[in-house]
Amino acid sequence: MAKKVGIKKTGAKKPVEPANSKLSCPGFKASGISAGIKSGAKKDLGLIVSDLPATVAGVFTKNKVKAAPVVIGQTLVRRKTSSGVIVNSGRANACTGAHGLEKARAMIGSVEAGLGLKAGSILSASTGSIGSPFPIDKIIRRVPALVDSLSSKGFADFAEAIMTTDAYPKSAKLKARVGGKNITILGIAKGAGMIKPDMATMLAFFMTDFNIGKRALKSALKSSVDKTFNKISVDNDTSTNDTVLIFANALAGGKECAEGSASYRAFTKLLTEVSMKLAHLIVKDGEGATKFIEVSVKGAKTQSDANKATEAIADSYLVKTALFGSDPGWGRILAVLGRAKIKIDQNKVDITLNGVKVAKNGIDNGKEREAAKKMRVKNIEIVCDLKLGKFSDTRWTSDLSDNYVKFNSGM
Amino acid sequence: MAKKVGIKKTGAKKPVEPANSKLSCPGFKASGISAGIKSGAKKDLGLIVSDLPATVAGVFTKNKVKAAPVVIGQTLVRRKTSSGVIVNSGRANACTGAHGLEKARAMIGSVEAGLGLKAGSILSASTGSIGSPFPIDKIIRRVPALVDSLSSKGFADFAEAIMTTDAYPKSAKLKARVGGKNITILGIAKGAGMIKPDMATMLAFFMTDFNIGKRALKSALKSSVDKTFNKISVDNDTSTNDTVLIFANALAGGKECAEGSASYRAFTKLLTEVSMKLAHLIVKDGEGATKFIEVSVKGAKTQSDANKATEAIADSYLVKTALFGSDPGWGRILAVLGRAKIKIDQNKVDITLNGVKVAKNGIDNGKEREAAKKMRVKNIEIVCDLKLGKFSDTRWTSDLSDNYVKFNSGM
Repeated sequence: MAKKVGIKKTGAKKPVEPANSKLSCPGFKASGISAGIKSGAKKDLGLIVSDLPATVAGVFTKNKVKAAPVVIGQTLVRRKTSSGVIVNSGRANACTGAHGLEKARAMIGSVEAGLGLKAGSILSASTGSIGSPFPIDKIIRRVPALVDSLSSKGFADFAEAIMTTDAYPKSAKLKARVGGKNITILGIAKGAGMIKPDMATMLAFFMTDFNIGKRALKSALKSSVDKTFNKISVDNDTSTNDTVLIFANALAGGKECAEGSASYRAFTKLLTEVSMKLAHLIVKDGEGATKFIEVSVKGAKTQSDANKATEAIADSYLVKTALFGSDPGWGRILAVLGRAKIKIDQNKVDITLNGVKVAKNGIDNGKEREAAKKMRVKNIEIVCDLKLGKFSDTRWTSDLSDNYVKFNSGM
Repeated sequence: MAKKVGIKKTGAKKPVEPANSKLSCPGFKASGISAGIKSGAKKDLGLIVSDLPATVAGVFTKNKVKAAPVVIGQTLVRRKTSSGVIVNSGRANACTGAHGLEKARAMIGSVEAGLGLKAGSILSASTGSIGSPFPIDKIIRRVPALVDSLSSKGFADFAEAIMTTDAYPKSAKLKARVGGKNITILGIAKGAGMIKPDMATMLAFFMTDFNIGKRALKSALKSSVDKTFNKISVDNDTSTNDTVLIFANALAGGKECAEGSASYRAFTKLLTEVSMKLAHLIVKDGEGATKFIEVSVKGAKTQSDANKATEAIADSYLVKTALFGSDPGWGRILAVLGRAKIKIDQNKVDITLNGVKVAKNGIDNGKEREAAKKMRVKNIEIVCDLKLGKFSDTRWTSDLSDNYVKFNSGM
């Protein structure tokens, strides 16, 4: 299985990783333009369209307060196929009541009309401020231009149009041979509030030319999301607008892939890989983030304990501020483990920071100074060994900097 | 029941509220000196002693990682009486293993020797950095001076000696007539990391001359702590060192108060009042805090839902940073309610900020501008009405500012 992985971050404030493949996927077109929702002439309206109706699957926020496009999307995504998705940034169309639902339907309807498609062919997503009135007139006025500018090279514009506080657009692409066919998976995401992803909407859209059945596509998507986006988040701790959609147009040919087959497993692995790249890009772009932190816990008594432990550490203000300061204060980490509602023996825990074992059997190992030196880098690895069992978990987070506060307070 | 409530914050960086009563309690002495644990000549060692053995009760951290003085204190506090407590700041004596336990015992032993008391007469508490070696030699060298400087006027020195990142010492005092006797309750506390009290140790010590039985004292303390300190915290989300102790020396005379009596209820109410003052002082001194925020939820379907809802709001990074910026973005609050794992109907929720109803039945009420004006003050009141039942809860928190990050990152 030969493959190429390309990561492209255009218009980046941060360094751009080399892209070894252009942003495209056979049979898909995209566009991104300004509709005047965001200030300046920033792009804020995007569209992805599949030339043929594509098999579709989606994963949505578990938040009980759901944005209008989520409420509508959860129904629409049950159809076998979809022709694409319209997305705006700047306003979330969340907490907007019955009017919000009407406006989300109008947004979808105007694209369907513009493309000459039947009702129910197009999905939508929105991201931006919650509770603000939704500027549907601005959007409808610009839909003709949005449709006109659709192009197989339009994905960079689309990636830019869905940004909110993102410092750069996020995309990942992968080509590989699956089931005897060359296939492409292209993913585009936005999200930059993943310090704690309460309400920082995460949107991700995948396009593939793989030939896969509806049920298999749904399972592959769920499996990938659980291992990637859900590991940079806290279970159920999602925004009003979180949406992940995948469109598979079968253009690569071959026989339809069914759940459980070898091609299914190969495809799911590839999709997970593309998702992981996007998930990590989101963490690296965490609002005000200066560090990319991998939190691992091993030796847990149960899988649930391992998950709770990594979640508690990745979610702690004090650990995240300490890491912003490159502080090897492992005591804060051990104290978090102590309140994580897991089985723990404080006299057994080892804590390793960037390869330096700072705590051994729950006490100082005399290596804080050495660790402090190794922590003056962007990537931090925390490994806690509870020595109580065989379960482990890993997740990713960013540090908590003064710039996070600036972003979110408007101060 | 005539009473006087006095709040004193000496050496304050923030405005000092007027004190209408000096810091003292009949039959108790205190002292606070420098032992060279903290840098400079800052006070870092304190002692409270009761002239007579006092009935004692305590509440300790629920964190499974417990500091040495907590492990020892939990056993010692089961005795009927205690003669006092020695406290140091600067080092927490947490995550220090068997050596830490020996050192905590040595600290207690040196005070008992200095006072000519039997083993088991004195309790201890520590606060400061976790995992660092505990400087027992520095402490023991200064215990004679600490004992020598005991005075009925020494409580201000004690309050200063137990500070860590606190901007000012915290104390509250109340005199009242209970069961036909004039009684005094004096409380002294430290704690300033209550933005999220994971590991920011909170210590509080109460002295009273009330005559009360051991069991009743324990119940009164637990009841007061649940309504006050536990409402500025997250259940079980405590530090390695959290300790609250109360000493009752019965000097006020009268018959011993038993649980359930009228005097018991009166005393518990007074103790709750003193605790509340201290709890609010801690929130106001939250690291980097610029706002004092009261979060209320009413109309919840169950008491548990009400508690979870206030906790989720008081704990949200995005809500707290928005409040730092005096931002009336109620959408963030509604989205937090949506992920709080409670029963909610988003189309029913009203949200009021400083008296202005910004959201009505889950949507914008057109009053954000009015609310923004009213929020440019230090005290913020958030009231959410879920309109699903009759249960309510209130708790207190501070905002999340760039200075919080500075405090905790060392940057």
